[in-house]
Amino acid sequence: MAVEISKEFLENIETLIRSERDRDILHLLSEEHPADIADVIDELNVEDGTYLVKLLDSEKTAEALLEIDEDDREKILQNLSAEEIADEIDEMDTDDAADIIAELPTERLSEVMSEIEDDEHKKDIVDLLQYKEGTAGSLMAKELIRVNENWTIPKCIKEMRAQANEVTRVHSIYVVDDDSILKGRLSLKDLLIASSKAHISDVYIPKVDYVNVNDKAEEVAQIMQKYDLEAIPVVDDEKRLQGRITIDDIVDFIKEEAEKDYQMAAGITEDVEADDSIVELIKARLPWLIIALFGGFISVSILSNFNGALNKYATLFFFTPLIAATAGNVGVQSSAIVVQALANGTLKGSMWKRLLKEISMSLINGIVLAIILLIISYFVLDKIIVGFSFKMAVTVAISLITVIILASLIGTFVPLMLDKKGIDPAVATGPFITTSNDIFGLFIFFYIAKIILGF
Amino acid sequence: MAVEISKEFLENIETLIRSERDRDILHLLSEEHPADIADVIDELNVEDGTYLVKLLDSEKTAEALLEIDEDDREKILQNLSAEEIADEIDEMDTDDAADIIAELPTERLSEVMSEIEDDEHKKDIVDLLQYKEGTAGSLMAKELIRVNENWTIPKCIKEMRAQANEVTRVHSIYVVDDDSILKGRLSLKDLLIASSKAHISDVYIPKVDYVNVNDKAEEVAQIMQKYDLEAIPVVDDEKRLQGRITIDDIVDFIKEEAEKDYQMAAGITEDVEADDSIVELIKARLPWLIIALFGGFISVSILSNFNGALNKYATLFFFTPLIAATAGNVGVQSSAIVVQALANGTLKGSMWKRLLKEISMSLINGIVLAIILLIISYFVLDKIIVGFSFKMAVTVAISLITVIILASLIGTFVPLMLDKKGIDPAVATGPFITTSNDIFGLFIFFYIAKIILGF
Repeated sequence: MAVEISKEFLENIETLIRSERDRDILHLLSEEHPADIADVIDELNVEDGTYLVKLLDSEKTAEALLEIDEDDREKILQNLSAEEIADEIDEMDTDDAADIIAELPTERLSEVMSEIEDDEHKKDIVDLLQYKEGTAGSLMAKELIRVNENWTIPKCIKEMRAQANEVTRVHSIYVVDDDSILKGRLSLKDLLIASSKAHISDVYIPKVDYVNVNDKAEEVAQIMQKYDLEAIPVVDDEKRLQGRITIDDIVDFIKEEAEKDYQMAAGITEDVEADDSIVELIKARLPWLIIALFGGFISVSILSNFNGALNKYATLFFFTPLIAATAGNVGVQSSAIVVQALANGTLKGSMWKRLLKEISMSLINGIVLAIILLIISYFVLDKIIVGFSFKMAVTVAISLITVIILASLIGTFVPLMLDKKGIDPAVATGPFITTSNDIFGLFIFFYIAKIILGF
Repeated sequence: MAVEISKEFLENIETLIRSERDRDILHLLSEEHPADIADVIDELNVEDGTYLVKLLDSEKTAEALLEIDEDDREKILQNLSAEEIADEIDEMDTDDAADIIAELPTERLSEVMSEIEDDEHKKDIVDLLQYKEGTAGSLMAKELIRVNENWTIPKCIKEMRAQANEVTRVHSIYVVDDDSILKGRLSLKDLLIASSKAHISDVYIPKVDYVNVNDKAEEVAQIMQKYDLEAIPVVDDEKRLQGRITIDDIVDFIKEEAEKDYQMAAGITEDVEADDSIVELIKARLPWLIIALFGGFISVSILSNFNGALNKYATLFFFTPLIAATAGNVGVQSSAIVVQALANGTLKGSMWKRLLKEISMSLINGIVLAIILLIISYFVLDKIIVGFSFKMAVTVAISLITVIILASLIGTFVPLMLDKKGIDPAVATGPFITTSNDIFGLFIFFYIAKIILGF
């Protein structure tokens, strides 16, 4: 069902834009969903994209603008007048409007705001702009259907019809008292099957999940997912109804967070996509590589400190990649499990219990790997490596077990600590944990070797 | 808003279960949401959990059973009779019922099926069991509201009231013809504001997004996210309406997929959580560590092949962790970007263009790192490492650039290839890519060193 934009289709549009055949363009795109129009704009250059935005009905382009790439949007908005932007904003739901407005440069912002015609819409947007990113307030929209508990069903339906024009999807009808305090909810289904003589207060459901404007977006996502909600009302500290958050925004939020964590674990610091420019991709990738390079320098200096081993036990140095890789892999595994559990709020029990569990698990993993290593050493490595001895194999095996335990402890401990300090634990995944475990792993390896072999 | 289960609350429940004070338990849990009851059951031991499931109303426990841990559920279901399970199944939506039934051992399955009283429910479940995991058919539920295009509005509302009892959330009303072919949809809002004299055919929206029962779940998720849908109808090859998929199931699906990819990238092969048993965690983590260990053995043998360098250029071996780590980090970055783009369906353009882009980007990253390396070598390493020469620094720098380019090509190429072969590209992330890049990286490093330094 998803419309794939063919090369021919795009070229066709480009030709039509070149020759300014507006009627043909409008005809060609009349049946397209705004999200598909966004895909088209993403593929065009900025001038052609701007041309489409100006040409098409702002009801369609307002939604399309929300879906296109942030970089493209910024450029297109630069090409529009304040009045043209205001026209688009007028068509958007308040939450989307506030997001777009917040992206504008400060001078532009007030210019555009003064051009918005609908005063109520403007007031709602200003209200939403006050909430910090990552809070329920920043995710909510002002559009919702609210009814007073004292109304009759017919009056409610009449009021609803008036309000429903503003609201794309109704979901629940929120019931408030005279002071706008949230009292409960009413489903459309209940309304459809209610007797026409009833009052709202007779039929509404007083039990309603809600969140506070200052609650964290993560918590909102967890609640909506846990209770399978499609919309949740948002209230202020006095429990006055302020807005509602719908599941489509939460779906986007969950996806973005997951992608951010995934990229962070892969050592990509900024939100990039495969189709971003080389400069943007380098900006996202180079910083971690530089940090890891300095980690590498530390490894070099550790190894050079143990150069006493070079004469008698040079073959030990063949094992440095094996030790470093194992330390890195174990650290990443441990940190990934902790980071995920923290994100899902499923981490229970004390930190000491968790560390103890990691130690037991790592001990078993370490012993298994050490046994494999000894077997391979005896049957294979002993024959292909000049100067290899069983004593050296035992040294590597003991180091392996120690390194695995230490790496898993670091991988578990660091994200827990960061989380306690209020720092996103996801930064402790990927290159960070592999680099630090490389360093610790090599140090331990050669230190143990020094003790056992003596050099 | 999310209810945190306190230790006291749990202990209280446990005491009440011990002394079989059923009335008190029922009173205590009467107001709890099934998802919260699931949390309680997750925390209790299997016997106590089973006790609660048997005691509480199956309307509540049916939903709670869906939310608890799969392992816990399996054990609790073992403690229930076929009839008791059938009672729970009777209360579930067909999609959930089919999921639970599919988890049962084969003998148990037919026993339970024969105990299901509602024949239509049973037929629907059997129908759903035929669809393969990961298809739209396996995600859809049979519960939906369907109306015939020839009905009048009052007849439609009457029929809907009857059907609505079966359907937890209405979303859209699907309009079909006499042959059950999907014709369009009708929103509750439209129905509320339609004239009572109209026919369905006058008011329904003929444009409706739908998916085929055999479409992939990923595609369904992409479509629903792109078009902000809360439910989508599912049709068979003749476009006959078969069921619908709701956004709550898609939210769960998106979350599970993201977690699977994240774990895969961290070298965790089975879906585990921090609170799983040590045995389960080891089963998920040990396989990758063993694979990486064998990668380490290959590194050992490569290095031992270059042992000619040990006499004159032993300090080269100090740089192996630095080279291996850089290769690993670059490979993970590249593969993460490709895997994410593949998952989102945003990968455009030819493979060659992509590889060319990676080469340019890596060349720049490589040159920056090489310059840093030369500077540090000149001012620091040269002074602290005995036997270090500028020629060696140049060797390391050239190797670094080469390794970065190669690692990024492997990181880009392997997931693209896997995807073309129909294998989940996410397996090519994490330990897989770091291990293979370690091996290639070290080989290239020493090969280049051999050419430049000659040993």
